[in-house]
Amino acid sequence: MTKENNVIIAPATPPGTSALAIIRLSGEDCITLTQKLFVGKKLSEQPSHTLHFGLIKDGDNAIDEVVISVFKGPNSFTKENSIEISCHGSPLIVQRIITTFLKNGASLAGPGEFTKRAFLNGRFDLAQAEAVADLINSETDNARQAALNQMRGGFSKEIRKLREELIHFASLIELELDFGEEDIEFAKRDDLKNLIFKIQAFIKALLQSFQQGNVIKNGVPTVIAGKPNAGKSTLLNLLLNEERAIVSEIAGTTRDVIEDEMVLDGINFRFIDTAGLRDTTDAIEAMGIVRAKEQLKKASLVLYIVDLGNTTLNEIQKELKELGSLTVPIINVGNKVDKAVPGLLRELEALDFIFISATQRVNIDKLHEKILSSFHIDNVKQGDVIITNLRHFQSLKDTNDALDRVLKGMDEGVTGDFMAMDVRNALYHLGLITGQISTEDLLENIFSKFCIGK
Amino acid sequence: MTKENNVIIAPATPPGTSALAIIRLSGEDCITLTQKLFVGKKLSEQPSHTLHFGLIKDGDNAIDEVVISVFKGPNSFTKENSIEISCHGSPLIVQRIITTFLKNGASLAGPGEFTKRAFLNGRFDLAQAEAVADLINSETDNARQAALNQMRGGFSKEIRKLREELIHFASLIELELDFGEEDIEFAKRDDLKNLIFKIQAFIKALLQSFQQGNVIKNGVPTVIAGKPNAGKSTLLNLLLNEERAIVSEIAGTTRDVIEDEMVLDGINFRFIDTAGLRDTTDAIEAMGIVRAKEQLKKASLVLYIVDLGNTTLNEIQKELKELGSLTVPIINVGNKVDKAVPGLLRELEALDFIFISATQRVNIDKLHEKILSSFHIDNVKQGDVIITNLRHFQSLKDTNDALDRVLKGMDEGVTGDFMAMDVRNALYHLGLITGQISTEDLLENIFSKFCIGK
Repeated sequence: MTKENNVIIAPATPPGTSALAIIRLSGEDCITLTQKLFVGKKLSEQPSHTLHFGLIKDGDNAIDEVVISVFKGPNSFTKENSIEISCHGSPLIVQRIITTFLKNGASLAGPGEFTKRAFLNGRFDLAQAEAVADLINSETDNARQAALNQMRGGFSKEIRKLREELIHFASLIELELDFGEEDIEFAKRDDLKNLIFKIQAFIKALLQSFQQGNVIKNGVPTVIAGKPNAGKSTLLNLLLNEERAIVSEIAGTTRDVIEDEMVLDGINFRFIDTAGLRDTTDAIEAMGIVRAKEQLKKASLVLYIVDLGNTTLNEIQKELKELGSLTVPIINVGNKVDKAVPGLLRELEALDFIFISATQRVNIDKLHEKILSSFHIDNVKQGDVIITNLRHFQSLKDTNDALDRVLKGMDEGVTGDFMAMDVRNALYHLGLITGQISTEDLLENIFSKFCIGK
Repeated sequence: MTKENNVIIAPATPPGTSALAIIRLSGEDCITLTQKLFVGKKLSEQPSHTLHFGLIKDGDNAIDEVVISVFKGPNSFTKENSIEISCHGSPLIVQRIITTFLKNGASLAGPGEFTKRAFLNGRFDLAQAEAVADLINSETDNARQAALNQMRGGFSKEIRKLREELIHFASLIELELDFGEEDIEFAKRDDLKNLIFKIQAFIKALLQSFQQGNVIKNGVPTVIAGKPNAGKSTLLNLLLNEERAIVSEIAGTTRDVIEDEMVLDGINFRFIDTAGLRDTTDAIEAMGIVRAKEQLKKASLVLYIVDLGNTTLNEIQKELKELGSLTVPIINVGNKVDKAVPGLLRELEALDFIFISATQRVNIDKLHEKILSSFHIDNVKQGDVIITNLRHFQSLKDTNDALDRVLKGMDEGVTGDFMAMDVRNALYHLGLITGQISTEDLLENIFSKFCIGK
């Protein structure tokens, strides 16, 4: 745990003209530094968690009337002395105040530097710190609730507890190794096995929650695919209820991958319109088709659309066969139902088609329902523990694999040093989640994605 | 003075993803209302100006961890009980919290409603309230300083004092009227005259400051005009140091009025590029020329540019003659100096021309200097009193006119009732500035221009 003394400063609210703006400072000397530029009460003599009206000055020049919040370490977000300056919401004033502090010895905070200090000073663990960013970036209520739960503790405490128990066993095993040839067993094998079962049961539940967690955090990439002019862009506009994609009668109009999102029942569906799949000599269109195929591979859901008025059963069967390699749910959509041959509809019903008319808005509600039913999630409630972070998911899997090896080793009667290695490996991966084990690279990677001022 | 009981709520920081967002509440019951949705300390028992960590909940659903600032009336901005909620900077969270408060009885604040309440509750006068908006919208340091000075008192106190003295005389004059025929003089005419001289001297200084104040607040609209293809757009881009206007060899390229601003030495110059002035059959271009002529009338400074390589002295003299009706400063700019006939330059020097080459960046510094020298203002210092507001300027002029009539009346020996009318008229206009006299319309007009949350 480091305690950094230098004072960092950053705007904590978005740029723009508004009633208020908040500038945030942290660091041992930030109260003394603020005092130098503040005309008002003696801040160092004020209790923590109090607000003080006054004037921020740059030499003889009054910059703004402000309200200063004083937080004294360790009772602050960063556990260091902290100050929040609430000034008038003018970008010019925010800039003037920050410049004046920089001139007087503060440094501009990097992205996530406040949260990083909070983590380094033991305010919370790494998984909780990551939840702060998820909370700020949450776009649905489920994502917000999942992030809030994780920030408020989530699985952190449980993981720390299990890890400590495992450390206890690891030290016993290491002790056995010290005694070398003497064949003494400090770590009871049955107890270790039971602990591993307990940890794995816990991990398994978390791993299972990731499918839902990933949907909550990242939404469902839903690719709209089909032959040229099947009505993909019309359908996208209809689903989004806006004129997002350019629609024309000309096959091959859409070349870029067009994407937009829509929250349905608490799930963020990211609809992705793609170029129609066909053989083409148009170089730009061909690039679009390559991209469409890439998108198909990354999709979590595919709406495959065919033009009922202009395609034979044979052709449709061939198209569906080409999609055969995809493992994600596919919803077969027959568009232009008003122009279809009746016989064709009967045949397609067997293939679980939903018939719509995008231009005439027929059956769009039914399509919404179908989309939703393919990705149902329960609403996240307070206290629910859900893994939404790919890094946590990966570390949990790595922990689980290491524990599998420990169990296998025990069954096969491997020597203590091999077992110790696998236990240490499990401890390592478990420690990465909470940040009890961390590297500068890992922290850099995590906090650089935060915004300035957080 | 009204004391409104209903609780108003609004976001006080700009929309966007950021570290923090502030939501603001005001009204007698806002502490009790917040308590209903807050899990943490008992807020009503906390002293004013304190900060409290806790959770905002909507029923069983935790929305966010927040820090609550408690301000108890009259020690708050609005002089009512007030709350600031500092939550995570997510638009979703801000929306969720505000919706929950609305559901529980708060009302969404209108634009400027917090400041309006502060004014109505006597926190400051109307001129100071208006300065709050000017402060937030200030785009130069001079504008910020002038607004801050006005918000911190400015001329308000002096005007109130002079107005009270005048009210004293007014009541003496009214008293004389009560005594009717008895010819008693309660209001000593010489003392009244001296007071009016004092008020007029004060007003005169303020009125004179408006020329500078207007430049500070609104910048200097600087129109770039001239015949087609003289190089107006090239010059605009050069002055702004960016590719703002589309430049081409084709005369008549600029049709819209293109405008952008640049702070030179603390003054905001709003450069306005216009369509070239010529007779044209192109309907859209003709509309552009009409607009250019309108802009010329509204300009505070004109850069008139001629193409030295393609215009005779005769033509130039004719062009300048056409500008003769303008009363604002005109800077004559000869462009394409590298292509000019030497004889022409000698003739134009007498007409106070500055020679440049926009494409070759010749003499651009000199042009900057010339622009600046035509609009010099002293930097605003703390305590300087400057009128920046057209409404104040108008009311001061109206007050001055009424006082002139009082003086004239005294000289001409008008009866007391006529004099009383003019004094009341002066009092009325003086009262409008500070808001001691106000109408719902006036307040509506002023506060509707504020942002939400202020």
